[in-house]
Amino acid sequence: MPQNIKKIRFENDYSEGAHPAVLSRIQEANLVQRAGYGLDDACLAAADSIRSRVGRQDADVHFLTGGTSANLIALTAFLRPHEAVICTDTAHIHVHETGAIEAAGHKLITLSAPDGKLSPAPIEEAALRFTDEHMVKPRLVFIANATELGTHYTLSELRSLRAVCDKLGLLLYMDGARLGNALAASDAEWADLPNLLDAFYIGGTKNGALFGEAMVIVNDRLKPYFRYVIKQRGGMMAKGFLLGLQFQALFENDLYMEMARHANAMADELRAALAEKRIPLSPATKTNQVFAVMPNGMIRTLSKRYAFHAMQPIDEQHTVVRLVASWATTREMVSAFRNDLIKI
Amino acid sequence: MPQNIKKIRFENDYSEGAHPAVLSRIQEANLVQRAGYGLDDACLAAADSIRSRVGRQDADVHFLTGGTSANLIALTAFLRPHEAVICTDTAHIHVHETGAIEAAGHKLITLSAPDGKLSPAPIEEAALRFTDEHMVKPRLVFIANATELGTHYTLSELRSLRAVCDKLGLLLYMDGARLGNALAASDAEWADLPNLLDAFYIGGTKNGALFGEAMVIVNDRLKPYFRYVIKQRGGMMAKGFLLGLQFQALFENDLYMEMARHANAMADELRAALAEKRIPLSPATKTNQVFAVMPNGMIRTLSKRYAFHAMQPIDEQHTVVRLVASWATTREMVSAFRNDLIKI
Amino acid sequence: MPQNIKKIRFENDYSEGAHPAVLSRIQEANLVQRAGYGLDDACLAAADSIRSRVGRQDADVHFLTGGTSANLIALTAFLRPHEAVICTDTAHIHVHETGAIEAAGHKLITLSAPDGKLSPAPIEEAALRFTDEHMVKPRLVFIANATELGTHYTLSELRSLRAVCDKLGLLLYMDGARLGNALAASDAEWADLPNLLDAFYIGGTKNGALFGEAMVIVNDRLKPYFRYVIKQRGGMMAKGFLLGLQFQALFENDLYMEMARHANAMADELRAALAEKRIPLSPATKTNQVFAVMPNGMIRTLSKRYAFHAMQPIDEQHTVVRLVASWATTREMVSAFRNDLIKI
Amino acid sequence: MPQNIKKIRFENDYSEGAHPAVLSRIQEANLVQRAGYGLDDACLAAADSIRSRVGRQDADVHFLTGGTSANLIALTAFLRPHEAVICTDTAHIHVHETGAIEAAGHKLITLSAPDGKLSPAPIEEAALRFTDEHMVKPRLVFIANATELGTHYTLSELRSLRAVCDKLGLLLYMDGARLGNALAASDAEWADLPNLLDAFYIGGTKNGALFGEAMVIVNDRLKPYFRYVIKQRGGMMAKGFLLGLQFQALFENDLYMEMARHANAMADELRAALAEKRIPLSPATKTNQVFAVMPNGMIRTLSKRYAFHAMQPIDEQHTVVRLVASWATTREMVSAFRNDLIKI
Repeated sequence: MPQNIKKIRFENDYSEGAHPAVLSRIQEANLVQRAGYGLDDACLAAADSIRSRVGRQDADVHFLTGGTSANLIALTAFLRPHEAVICTDTAHIHVHETGAIEAAGHKLITLSAPDGKLSPAPIEEAALRFTDEHMVKPRLVFIANATELGTHYTLSELRSLRAVCDKLGLLLYMDGARLGNALAASDAEWADLPNLLDAFYIGGTKNGALFGEAMVIVNDRLKPYFRYVIKQRGGMMAKGFLLGLQFQALFENDLYMEMARHANAMADELRAALAEKRIPLSPATKTNQVFAVMPNGMIRTLSKRYAFHAMQPIDEQHTVVRLVASWATTREMVSAFRNDLIKI
Repeated sequence: MPQNIKKIRFENDYSEGAHPAVLSRIQEANLVQRAGYGLDDACLAAADSIRSRVGRQDADVHFLTGGTSANLIALTAFLRPHEAVICTDTAHIHVHETGAIEAAGHKLITLSAPDGKLSPAPIEEAALRFTDEHMVKPRLVFIANATELGTHYTLSELRSLRAVCDKLGLLLYMDGARLGNALAASDAEWADLPNLLDAFYIGGTKNGALFGEAMVIVNDRLKPYFRYVIKQRGGMMAKGFLLGLQFQALFENDLYMEMARHANAMADELRAALAEKRIPLSPATKTNQVFAVMPNGMIRTLSKRYAFHAMQPIDEQHTVVRLVASWATTREMVSAFRNDLIKI
Repeated sequence: MPQNIKKIRFENDYSEGAHPAVLSRIQEANLVQRAGYGLDDACLAAADSIRSRVGRQDADVHFLTGGTSANLIALTAFLRPHEAVICTDTAHIHVHETGAIEAAGHKLITLSAPDGKLSPAPIEEAALRFTDEHMVKPRLVFIANATELGTHYTLSELRSLRAVCDKLGLLLYMDGARLGNALAASDAEWADLPNLLDAFYIGGTKNGALFGEAMVIVNDRLKPYFRYVIKQRGGMMAKGFLLGLQFQALFENDLYMEMARHANAMADELRAALAEKRIPLSPATKTNQVFAVMPNGMIRTLSKRYAFHAMQPIDEQHTVVRLVASWATTREMVSAFRNDLIKI
Repeated sequence: MPQNIKKIRFENDYSEGAHPAVLSRIQEANLVQRAGYGLDDACLAAADSIRSRVGRQDADVHFLTGGTSANLIALTAFLRPHEAVICTDTAHIHVHETGAIEAAGHKLITLSAPDGKLSPAPIEEAALRFTDEHMVKPRLVFIANATELGTHYTLSELRSLRAVCDKLGLLLYMDGARLGNALAASDAEWADLPNLLDAFYIGGTKNGALFGEAMVIVNDRLKPYFRYVIKQRGGMMAKGFLLGLQFQALFENDLYMEMARHANAMADELRAALAEKRIPLSPATKTNQVFAVMPNGMIRTLSKRYAFHAMQPIDEQHTVVRLVASWATTREMVSAFRNDLIKI
């Protein structure tokens, strides 16, 4: 696959390394000797910062290497063999993790969700279809926030999911690969999360870390032996302090949210440019992902200078494309895109 | 677990970050946009460097995040469900990876090996015990080089393992977490490896990288769809270029072996200090790991200033301790240790 | 769950024991000593009878204990970890085997199929959606024949499935829990099967055996080490000869098809009675399963004397019910049902 | 593998069908319609009989198809992913079930046990070696009673295992494939079992049933959702009533123990004949399995008329052979063997 590195990438939010403040933490600490496997002082301090941020001192915090790994470790640890996961049919675990959850033994029960979001009624309807031991037992609701389609959950929506999960005896788990972008766009606050979720992860990879996700486990029943599963599934770094150092940089001050807000703002400018050109969005989003229904000729033209994903054809003339902004996206990159777009 | 960060650590070879030359590659490239998932130019160049180093242009090279992950991905990809692994009873996959290979469905057949090394006769004897479908089918011989006990394989020993594997229809796989240290101590050369092994990984984490291992697959039958298994088991980094950049730094010149030789040399000085004090080694090693039979009082005294692992008691007065040198171990650290040791 | 054993059961085709000719084989041989694990003369003879029936002397035949076990063993043996299964959204493996295939690590890709049957176009469309290593690799098409909705495949339909599988490099596997009923209703013959399928099983449990299914493997690449997987997944009977004896009785003469034709004929009478009462079928079938759209009041009345499954509501007044005939269904049972139906 | 069916088999205890009283239950009920999947009256009655026999009305009883299946279902249901099993190095699950437990994801920790029996000290020593998340967590002690070497546990030995399991927080599970033979030879009673074990299965296949094992779960925490795991792992029979009918025959009266005592008595006669000929036993047993150290020439001679297993060579002239008696072994078979033995 040839890679034209001269193009400006709106392909994803992991095209660059790390925010300089994150990288410099690693540099400064480079020759400090630390304990292995995440038992070091940097990890302890970062976990404390996160516990403070979410306002739950008894939460367990574990640092993991990536999103697929985080999801498969969590679901492996949380579920018994006959238990299944309810998610959207656009969920990352369903579509883009090579069957990682099934490889861990668990069925996904997928619900149609044109905007990428789950809601209580279809969850309840789905759960009630599974009535006996010839079927799997729905046990965990998986949401991504922001979703894979760039939409996000409001506080009220999250509360209604919590309510239906409580009613049905289901766990509620959130993939927060783009949690900063979601919170920046939403009325939900950090401190709401532990009251609404049994566990969730805070994504670093897509928001300014070199790599790394912070798993936050709130439900006491899900806490024991989690580190065993991390190790068993290959998710425990020897130099775990690399994760601790990065999350210290992200959470000791407001850097994490600053970057998320910046990414959303750059996406807003992309959205403005598209609106100017009367390119419709589908779905409409407020986070750092923009999905636009473009004429195929426009896509061909823009592709000469910009890298982005063509998702699926809408009709013979139009295709949905995805444009992603990140902490590293500059106003210059967005302006260049706008100018080229307007000219078409 | 209290962490006294003032102690000098001979605990392992992953207490620090990365060799400065490795880290600066990441810094310099930090804002360069690259393709995701290891499909970038840095990964391609690093893979080429490794192919050149081992003299096998058709080898597949994949960059992975850590040793447990590398082993479980390889064995998952290489084995059918009924197939088993032959290894020593001190093998990392048996003792210290939380049952990762069994969690992937495969039985380990463990052979006693006081020096941590497998040899043809017990492999053949073991393989012949598995005669029918009520038993697993031995299919892959797992060796670590250097071994978990710091010993290493000579070229002749590796050839004899290849021969017995060929005779019995077994695959030969090498965990090279400390491959540099092994090669620096051995008469085997890089270019021997593809002729002797079906697949192996070159360890970065324990030899100067922040993290990362390079899987080299030589046997054509093991190559297809390996990236699917990497992704499925959570081993594919979004910013895969971080691995490519590091392995470029390690293999574009001789840095990888320079660091390994340095670590072995520092271990030689530790061995010399122990010999001076007439502390016996068990087993004797030439790589960067030193196993010494120390009086318990000496261990208590040294533990005040140095971090190292007490392995297992030999008798009521003595315990085997492990001292590990690395690319980051300085002559000053070793001298301090020697001086304190001599004084006891 | 209260069990009223006085009701006449059209609930399924496994409410009774075995056809007397099958049971008497077991009785007659009861004190004959035989080798264990299916390595006895009865299994060899039964396998030969099946090979003759399907006209393929080099097929491997294995006797298994039940349908879920047969499916999970086959798919475990046939697939690599990243490979997935294409099936209908009404497939037994999707709906009623408690996630057995996912528990074996494999994702199911489900296609909507109102009549329970797969066809080439949606298979091809589905297969082409899976383009890279972030997604599973479709590898095996799973069909049931007769289907879970009582429909069956014509010879032409099977040929078109074979063609699309060849085109796309997919395996074609058939769950033949009700294969006799399908063949009795279809223009496909026993001898067509090995030319069309990579592997399939011939169901005994639902057609006159106490229990047991015969797995027929045609594709040479799927044959090696199958017995290892049978044993590993708990499917190898110590007294395997019980399976051999039963399949001898079923296949040494025409008993298997006689029973299937009888079951279909009894279902035809049920269909006739329903037509008389103008109860629509949905879907229309020619095998031993009858799906009828009944008024709910009628269901309540019939349920007092007959056991059968209410499947799903169609509207507030109507529900689809399933009536199943078997080798053990008598004309008297069907007549009683007809008479009670007509009276409503 | 040629099968000479004229030989008298002391090869195992599953060479014949079922005790006539068991088989006639199936015959008599053959055309009675019953509910599927073990939810019928015969299963309920058989479960009640077993609960009464062991004196624990709140035990859960499930009927399963075979020993490997029973073990893998139980351990799958009882263990979390990081949990491991402690067993002997002669345990059936370690040696002769094709890695079924590892295929279910769990490591076996094997202890040397020359007589096939576990004892508290090595269990405690083993358990204490597993200290952190880099290692599996020992969670369940697996014993077979009678053992794979024909020995059995006394009541006192079982109590000491219970005590060490309680001390260490371990579950105690018993494979009772030959439980009747063990109880007939031991001072332990049926009613002791629920006080000593968390779960166990009562073997039918090797003691007069066509097939079938009864899993008894005593520990309340292990009970929920067990039927889901049975179904998922292919262990749920459509005609589950076949198991209920057989266990009714075995446990409504004393038939199960009568057969076990008979088998042990026939083995006693084999032991007497061997003693007469001064053939040593290794190990000495009181159950239906006899392990004798025979000169190789004697083995060759006896093999012409008798089928039995040669286990392993002791020296160049001697081999351990296994002779097994069962409910179906007759005095005539034993006398014939004795006479031929004496003549050698």
